Amino acid sequence: MSSPFRPVLIGGAWKESLGTETFQATNPATEEKFGDLFPISPCEEVEDAVIAAAQAAKETRGWPGVRFASFLQCLARKLGETERANALVEMANAETALPRAPRLLEVELPRTINQLLQAAAAAIDGSWARPTIDREKNIRSILAPIGPVVVFGPNNFPFAFNGVSGGDFAAAIAAGNPVIAKGNPSHPGTTRLLAEAAFEAAKECGMPHNFIQLIYHMSEDDGLSLVSHDCIGATAFTGSRTAGQKLKAAADDAGKPFYMETGSINPVVILPGALKEHFDKVLTDYVGSCLMGTGQFCTSPKVVVMLAGSETERWIGEAAEHFGKATVGTLLSESVLKNLQSGVGSLKLLGATTVTGGDRADGQGFRFQNTLLRVDGETFSGDYDLQCECFGNAALIVVAIDADELLECLEALEGNLTGTIYSATNGGDDALYNRIEPGLRRRVGRLLNDKMPTGVAVSPAMNHGGPYPATGHPGFTAVGIPRSLERFAALQCYDNVRQDRLPPTLRDK
Amino acid sequence: MSSPFRPVLIGGAWKESLGTETFQATNPATEEKFGDLFPISPCEEVEDAVIAAAQAAKETRGWPGVRFASFLQCLARKLGETERANALVEMANAETALPRAPRLLEVELPRTINQLLQAAAAAIDGSWARPTIDREKNIRSILAPIGPVVVFGPNNFPFAFNGVSGGDFAAAIAAGNPVIAKGNPSHPGTTRLLAEAAFEAAKECGMPHNFIQLIYHMSEDDGLSLVSHDCIGATAFTGSRTAGQKLKAAADDAGKPFYMETGSINPVVILPGALKEHFDKVLTDYVGSCLMGTGQFCTSPKVVVMLAGSETERWIGEAAEHFGKATVGTLLSESVLKNLQSGVGSLKLLGATTVTGGDRADGQGFRFQNTLLRVDGETFSGDYDLQCECFGNAALIVVAIDADELLECLEALEGNLTGTIYSATNGGDDALYNRIEPGLRRRVGRLLNDKMPTGVAVSPAMNHGGPYPATGHPGFTAVGIPRSLERFAALQCYDNVRQDRLPPTLRDK
Repeated sequence: MSSPFRPVLIGGAWKESLGTETFQATNPATEEKFGDLFPISPCEEVEDAVIAAAQAAKETRGWPGVRFASFLQCLARKLGETERANALVEMANAETALPRAPRLLEVELPRTINQLLQAAAAAIDGSWARPTIDREKNIRSILAPIGPVVVFGPNNFPFAFNGVSGGDFAAAIAAGNPVIAKGNPSHPGTTRLLAEAAFEAAKECGMPHNFIQLIYHMSEDDGLSLVSHDCIGATAFTGSRTAGQKLKAAADDAGKPFYMETGSINPVVILPGALKEHFDKVLTDYVGSCLMGTGQFCTSPKVVVMLAGSETERWIGEAAEHFGKATVGTLLSESVLKNLQSGVGSLKLLGATTVTGGDRADGQGFRFQNTLLRVDGETFSGDYDLQCECFGNAALIVVAIDADELLECLEALEGNLTGTIYSATNGGDDALYNRIEPGLRRRVGRLLNDKMPTGVAVSPAMNHGGPYPATGHPGFTAVGIPRSLERFAALQCYDNVRQDRLPPTLRDK
Repeated sequence: MSSPFRPVLIGGAWKESLGTETFQATNPATEEKFGDLFPISPCEEVEDAVIAAAQAAKETRGWPGVRFASFLQCLARKLGETERANALVEMANAETALPRAPRLLEVELPRTINQLLQAAAAAIDGSWARPTIDREKNIRSILAPIGPVVVFGPNNFPFAFNGVSGGDFAAAIAAGNPVIAKGNPSHPGTTRLLAEAAFEAAKECGMPHNFIQLIYHMSEDDGLSLVSHDCIGATAFTGSRTAGQKLKAAADDAGKPFYMETGSINPVVILPGALKEHFDKVLTDYVGSCLMGTGQFCTSPKVVVMLAGSETERWIGEAAEHFGKATVGTLLSESVLKNLQSGVGSLKLLGATTVTGGDRADGQGFRFQNTLLRVDGETFSGDYDLQCECFGNAALIVVAIDADELLECLEALEGNLTGTIYSATNGGDDALYNRIEPGLRRRVGRLLNDKMPTGVAVSPAMNHGGPYPATGHPGFTAVGIPRSLERFAALQCYDNVRQDRLPPTLRDK
């Protein structure tokens, strides 16, 4: 009799899971469970994956970057095959309710492929590892693979941040490390299709078969053991703050690098001159950015800070009107809906008032009304809990009575991925800009002018990172190649080591 | 009436401490307390220092590297002044028992000055911050000052790793950050002299007067609050593992980078061919490296691993003879002596046997006999506690019965700063070298061939770092400029930010 549920990719083959518990995807648009049963891996299986990954790291030790690049390129090609791309898009759409087009087919899949190819190019180039040679003292150093990397994928990018195809995956492999992917439980079917492509590519390119592994799900305790395992090099985690911080604590305790990216509220400050000069553009930018992807981006502008005044009131009124008229998107899962309901409820309890929306949307599917809340600056700056992220299509506008109060709101902010200031082009806002910029700058990873923070370009200059709690270390980025590779490397120095024993890059030419 | 104890350097001036408890230095050679009373700062004073440092960070924001460099160069000049240098050497000798010459005057002080000058050069050059410009997408990024840095200095380098003059201090400042130095309680007088020089230099160079601050001592709880304070950017800690790990846990919990360097056992593998070819040289190297500085270096070779045999027995016998004949140095403090006694006691309880030494030395001063212990490979690989670092002039030789057992010993090792392999030049050891190198390589920050690990050159290619628990993150180094500066920086990205608002380095030329 065949197994009642999908096999896991562990130890170099798709094999029956040792687990007995299962889970299933839910279509967020119909609220119905569908498709295959997927296993929840028990601790023995997680341990098997770690041992196999450690073996793969030994086998690939010293390989030139081009071998890892070939694998990434092969996977990129496979993801571009029409039939496979269509199957991926269909599955991801059913599992996440993200639109087939343009989102999944025309934006996210090409981005995913592009990231794999950029990572491959970085692996071939090799300069990311910063080989450094001090010939006089005969000391040399280089960033070397850190060891097996665990990649936890989030719910909101089924391809581009998937544990078995996304940016962290590509960076970990380009840096020379085997990957254990932890699928996001909201889209196991998509993750399976991606892992099938990755495993095929690994075999075709002569990688060790255990170089890529996949665990669909595991208990919280097993997750804690995994990220702190002696044989693991590092972990990349994109997801909820609660889960991220628990895992980080376990990894920290074991001295294992843990790169988390748990979203943020991405404050946008709209200064009065900008409102006057570009009322409509700022409005369109904001509504578009806020509701894009039904607000389910790490860089969604969850909090706008403005100065009180009649233009501000008119702007909020029009924003509310746009929110009310805009299509109500479907959320990624029931838990996103529940967290959103509870987040909006909390903001209201803490003093925010509803401008528009605020309730579950009528009809089928996990949907919530496009929601706008507001709160005064004093209340916002006085209560840290008003900085809670409402992941989904709800946002908060903070109205400060004057520049001092606006400054206080910004000084009260925790670490964020992004911070944005819209200001007049005629210099009218410059004094205020100069007053608020230093405090905002040190609280965010990416500072923007005059554009919304959604859209994280894969550029060498990008920082998709920032101060805690947006991430765990302000010196690293999750997006932007080659820099994102550095997270998965250890600095290795060779002192007086004989020429023929050095990595080729460190030898005398 | 004047204060009964030395003032602290906090908030821009030398001022009377709010503390009521005091401590005093002890001369390790005479075992007598001497000199000034120094205050233990209470939490209010620590908080004052943090607030003042945050203010200094605001004031120096955006300063070009050359301004920080001028300060470092000025301090370097001051430390080179004959009268000051002599006073420093006298005081450090009295407080640490480290020899005036060559150690303090001819080695450590010049090294300290050189580090300050190298850091200054890196600050002027600026390329360490890796400015990255994507003109097409108008995205730019740079490593920017992380915020006030706390530097805990260790007991064993009163100048070169002092919180107010050493490598971490120089790197934090070259990266543009104010420093709160935490003096090591074993040499407060030396730290005071250094801080006086630094404060003079800060004033002469137009730095904010609160840019450099000094706390001599504080409670453990206040230390935990300090490293996890919201206004602190990062901490550099060199010292004991117990203290380092407590502080790390607090900093981790608050999401504050904590760079610790808590020493290691620095395994040295002597392969049989090397023993045959270079018996005497390996012996001289080893005895010299082991007893240098009375064994009180982070990179002291605390564990040697060898294959059983008659040459090995002869070598151990001669090493013991050298240990017995060599001068017995004075340890840095009574607590170093006590920890060493207890460490040697533990090793013996766990199965190690004494080859030579093993007891407190007769006569005055905190001195312990030059001590050599041995243990068999099976016992060593089977008990993690045998990897405890005996800081001081005691070392362990592990004798493995065969190559398999030797490999097991290496595979059982925790993360170390260094790992060394001595092997034959005639190729006779190559097969064994190739077998053991991969496991050793991934467990150490610096791999050496045919020389001992003491002596950490200030080279751009140096890695004074390594996997946990030797440090907290394997990607960073505490020695080696400019790389050591990166620890004290946050990645800051500018997206669509107007030209005149960009840091000068990121503007279009």
